[in-house]
Amino acid sequence: MTGRLPSTPFLAVDLPVLQANIDATAAWADDRGIALRPHVKTHKSSEIARMQADAGVARLSVATVGEGEVFAQGGFDELFIAYPLWIDAARGKRLRRLASEVVVTVGFDSLAGARTLVGTGVRGLVEIDSGHHRSGVAPAEAGALAGLAAEAGLEVAGVFTFPGHSYSPTSRLQAAVDEGAALTTAAQSMRAAGVEPGVISGGSTPSLAGLADGVTEARPGVYVFNDAQQWELQVCTPEQIALTCHATVVSHAGGRLVLDAGSKVLGADRPAWASGFGRLLDHPDARIVILSEHHAVVDMAGEQLPPLGSTVRVVPNHACNAVNLVEEYAVLDGGRLVDRWAVSARGMNA
Amino acid sequence: MTGRLPSTPFLAVDLPVLQANIDATAAWADDRGIALRPHVKTHKSSEIARMQADAGVARLSVATVGEGEVFAQGGFDELFIAYPLWIDAARGKRLRRLASEVVVTVGFDSLAGARTLVGTGVRGLVEIDSGHHRSGVAPAEAGALAGLAAEAGLEVAGVFTFPGHSYSPTSRLQAAVDEGAALTTAAQSMRAAGVEPGVISGGSTPSLAGLADGVTEARPGVYVFNDAQQWELQVCTPEQIALTCHATVVSHAGGRLVLDAGSKVLGADRPAWASGFGRLLDHPDARIVILSEHHAVVDMAGEQLPPLGSTVRVVPNHACNAVNLVEEYAVLDGGRLVDRWAVSARGMNA
Repeated sequence: MTGRLPSTPFLAVDLPVLQANIDATAAWADDRGIALRPHVKTHKSSEIARMQADAGVARLSVATVGEGEVFAQGGFDELFIAYPLWIDAARGKRLRRLASEVVVTVGFDSLAGARTLVGTGVRGLVEIDSGHHRSGVAPAEAGALAGLAAEAGLEVAGVFTFPGHSYSPTSRLQAAVDEGAALTTAAQSMRAAGVEPGVISGGSTPSLAGLADGVTEARPGVYVFNDAQQWELQVCTPEQIALTCHATVVSHAGGRLVLDAGSKVLGADRPAWASGFGRLLDHPDARIVILSEHHAVVDMAGEQLPPLGSTVRVVPNHACNAVNLVEEYAVLDGGRLVDRWAVSARGMNA
Repeated sequence: MTGRLPSTPFLAVDLPVLQANIDATAAWADDRGIALRPHVKTHKSSEIARMQADAGVARLSVATVGEGEVFAQGGFDELFIAYPLWIDAARGKRLRRLASEVVVTVGFDSLAGARTLVGTGVRGLVEIDSGHHRSGVAPAEAGALAGLAAEAGLEVAGVFTFPGHSYSPTSRLQAAVDEGAALTTAAQSMRAAGVEPGVISGGSTPSLAGLADGVTEARPGVYVFNDAQQWELQVCTPEQIALTCHATVVSHAGGRLVLDAGSKVLGADRPAWASGFGRLLDHPDARIVILSEHHAVVDMAGEQLPPLGSTVRVVPNHACNAVNLVEEYAVLDGGRLVDRWAVSARGMNA
């Protein structure tokens, strides 16, 4: 199909760049002998997951039971909910149904949490903290927790971590080193407790290049699209960015560019180290200096302002949150609309 | 209706607090003789707009043509699109249809922008910059722009500004003073150019208390709900917060609270002056110190941690962006579910 582009602001996927990103990471995982279990919270799209599967991906990571339901419907039969779920009656009913249809693994970082998983038909992976200091137990405590969870009746299949401190210009590759050390310690502690860590899972897009030996599975998400964070962390080049927001220049107020794309389509993410609220793909020196709900104010760094009414391509800081704000992607090839894909798992927070 | 609460995370509206907030601002506007034209991008809900109408509101502000379409369908017949729209063919078709059904006013801050509005059936308001430095012309230039736009065939009905620099603990009320001075200058310049500024429109929730004499219309949005920004700016007390995200405690990792509400339900907004990524309504000393897509990590400031599996109420930093992330509100009265309201204009960015 072809057709007219939607009204701005809209999110566009550059299909050849997306395909190249998917293929490059699949080839990397294949070379390394790593099981690639990409996190689909980034794209929330059955079409993109299918492209990943066509490149050799057999299993997916999801963030919530709701995302799991969407991708199970999409035909994926092995899902890891990479999150320390707390299962109450309503969520338990849904999780049991999901686990009766596909193979489901769920994270846990407490015995109480593990107990809520018992009887749902899922397997568990112990979550450890490898330096991000979000969720997860200390690596040396993984064995004790795994042993108690197994005693409580949960099938414990291994260990996982998210080295989120890789989102930093100074600790990106150190995070991969930390991750490797933490997973090694955790795996040893589990073996000592009599629980075999069949799955040793890590990975984030910024730290992937440094993934340590001994890690059996990687769960990057953003690599399919890349975004302004990855660009600024030097994880990708601008040519490897597959997701942009097309925006119209609505004002030249104050000698700056004002675009009709704000935090309601780009997301409001701005880590302390980021140079702005997003970048312009075709104007690498420009920076978004103010972001409101429907305005991005861009300092063009002395460059001539693109004219009123023209369209520019904005690179969101954080692809995952931008995607969650739209109903569909405009799929482009050479600037031409070739398809529209639903963001099928948009808003699936529960 | 009553029923079981949804699975966490979900957004809940406290109905009595919402009603009190709507009534208090309506009474304030009535006392002051100000036309209240609330911005409904905050709630995107026909039910809440109807409550505002029942309290005396006759006109609404919206951000996009799409929001206008939703509220026109909801029965509102006088809408201000408080944005310097750039009208191309597709948007023009929708705007003409909307303006044929209800009275539509649109902002502009350039002659080129005004020209795109001519022939669509809308009236225009000149946008001026009163200190936020986002969009809008300098106040003294309002008359020249209004004159040229009128010559080009646009009916120019007045002037508006958004004093967004009110979102600051140090300049909140100064922003109201700046706004008043800027609107006065702009109105004088328009009269000198032979364009009568029938509408002199300003207002934001933080600056509302200082609204200057001579401003005829106020456009606050967040006042219906309040949020952690308003709480930290001392615009409201915690008792006046009507919107919370109910979240489950999923982990006590590292001696902190980890909740299942992240940036995909709270939004990622964090102004530099904010004390964190959101607050807990029932634990005023607690701060969200890390926010991921599905995790909020809370430092409880020495307070005992609420137990695993318990529910806490999170106050988002920015209500408008949180609302845009969900399909519906759970409407509560005394903690009991009494209704569900659709976020009808969710995602209407174009």
